[in-house]
Amino acid sequence: MKYFISKLTILVISLVFFNFITAQQKPEYVIVIHGGAGVITKKNMTPEKEAAYKQKLNEALETGQKMLKKGGTATETVIAVIKIMENSPLFNAGKGAVFTHDGKNELDASIMDGKTLNAGAVAGVTDVKNPITLAYAVMTKSKHVMLSSKGASQFAKEQGIEIVDPSYFYTENRWKSLQKVLENEKKAEKEKHGTVGCVVLDKYGNLAAGTSTGGMTNKQYGRIGDSPIIGAGTYADNATCAVSCTGHGEFFIRYVVAYSVSALMKYKGLSLQDAGNEIINKTLKDVGGEGGLISVDKDGNIAMPFNTPGMFRGYIKSTGEKEVLIYRD
Amino acid sequence: MKYFISKLTILVISLVFFNFITAQQKPEYVIVIHGGAGVITKKNMTPEKEAAYKQKLNEALETGQKMLKKGGTATETVIAVIKIMENSPLFNAGKGAVFTHDGKNELDASIMDGKTLNAGAVAGVTDVKNPITLAYAVMTKSKHVMLSSKGASQFAKEQGIEIVDPSYFYTENRWKSLQKVLENEKKAEKEKHGTVGCVVLDKYGNLAAGTSTGGMTNKQYGRIGDSPIIGAGTYADNATCAVSCTGHGEFFIRYVVAYSVSALMKYKGLSLQDAGNEIINKTLKDVGGEGGLISVDKDGNIAMPFNTPGMFRGYIKSTGEKEVLIYRD
Repeated sequence: MKYFISKLTILVISLVFFNFITAQQKPEYVIVIHGGAGVITKKNMTPEKEAAYKQKLNEALETGQKMLKKGGTATETVIAVIKIMENSPLFNAGKGAVFTHDGKNELDASIMDGKTLNAGAVAGVTDVKNPITLAYAVMTKSKHVMLSSKGASQFAKEQGIEIVDPSYFYTENRWKSLQKVLENEKKAEKEKHGTVGCVVLDKYGNLAAGTSTGGMTNKQYGRIGDSPIIGAGTYADNATCAVSCTGHGEFFIRYVVAYSVSALMKYKGLSLQDAGNEIINKTLKDVGGEGGLISVDKDGNIAMPFNTPGMFRGYIKSTGEKEVLIYRD
Repeated sequence: MKYFISKLTILVISLVFFNFITAQQKPEYVIVIHGGAGVITKKNMTPEKEAAYKQKLNEALETGQKMLKKGGTATETVIAVIKIMENSPLFNAGKGAVFTHDGKNELDASIMDGKTLNAGAVAGVTDVKNPITLAYAVMTKSKHVMLSSKGASQFAKEQGIEIVDPSYFYTENRWKSLQKVLENEKKAEKEKHGTVGCVVLDKYGNLAAGTSTGGMTNKQYGRIGDSPIIGAGTYADNATCAVSCTGHGEFFIRYVVAYSVSALMKYKGLSLQDAGNEIINKTLKDVGGEGGLISVDKDGNIAMPFNTPGMFRGYIKSTGEKEVLIYRD
């Protein structure tokens, strides 16, 4: 009996120690994704819809994981992961983009490389299948950071980026949403958020962030939200973290949310978790700025704060940890 | 003789004390302006041109001073001051806007109110006489922060903001610049910066910042620079400072320059002067990001750092201090 107890003690101690080591260990790579924050509750969801979202989020994470395992870079992984979500009608980005007031689809995207602090962004494109690939081309093939509307499309054509007929972005679901909003603008106020995003830490210690969106249902006047704005919707700096935001864009611009997380870490010494909480659950919550963000720091820590009922989100780490979540459990 | 020396001592002590008090005293109001940073040297300038610039900068400062003296607010002063510079062909903003590659004028502007952190911005408008007034209308009359191109013009018309025929922005000088750049794109690389900006502290302790630009000579693809981007070209927060930037916009976006000054003060405890120097003369200088900024903090301190040969700039304080400067001395 005594022998058995001492064996058990050794086993317990070993397990505790192993867990401690695992928890402390910096993962080789990390991917975090979001598919938008908002009034996403069990009530608004069918089991089929829920399964479809989870399946697509898993597919995006697993695709990214395969790339990173083989030595893929943070930026190329961000692009591949976001493309999967852009090509799905489930999310308000790419194929599933919502309609503007005039019944058009205007897409925005941005990407940032934390190693070089290079960045690229596009706003108001109507005929580019994957706006995230265009944002990457702006970053790598132009002298500029941000291109807009027809000029951005012209650049896409010159770069040989896949162009589609604007009708590609027609989905019945989004069209109905616009009609519903047009019938009663105020009632649908809460439905306006929707974005996809991805942040990555790769094997080389580099961070990258990307965000893509179809904008706001019923948006007018060439409105630009936070998604294509470096500092507001997207930021990455190897010295601190990579961040992608989703929510009521106007607040995210005014509070420079993505960059704020980095600044709180760099200048105030906060952890990733505390920095994200401060901006999402204090600053923005106090002023009614609805939304959330995903983030990963240079040590592979992650944080996914949001102040809405739900946020489509998930992460995967080289250590084997993985989760895909929708609601505020 | 002894009597005279003691009188003199008292006089000297009084003067030193008076200066000390004046220096310590928080001014009731402050205006700082810029008219762009770049390769502005005595060599490139004629005495007539220099006098014209100084006269216009003085006019802008004095107009603002009259308003603030009478109890005008920071935001309305920013607008009035920037309008004077927009209406002058001397600066790359409004009337004096440079031409795009296609021979058009596309204007950008933004404004931010440090009391409420409300902000408004427009990008790529072609027919609005004073983009800064449109940015203000976006801030106060729309649900959005940023509107672009035709949509922004449509909003301007609905708001009764002065529309002009695009030919209003034709100036021979700027047209010649475009032709010169088109002939030899590389040679003229250095000429591309140009912006106007204004930051104000008013009697009520409120800060505001505004920036307006005609963009980059020969710009293509609907390029958006830092001027219409809250956080990059413009930022104001009563808790810290008001900032307006000018320079190579792509760097100002990537380094979120205007907001960085605020973050360095708020989170790292730097002074306005040290924060501005850190970002302009260290961070940006190290990566070749040319430009400068103007700033005022909540206590009425000012800083106007720039890393280019010159920057059109000036300030006026309620205490009577006033300067208008062009070159580095």
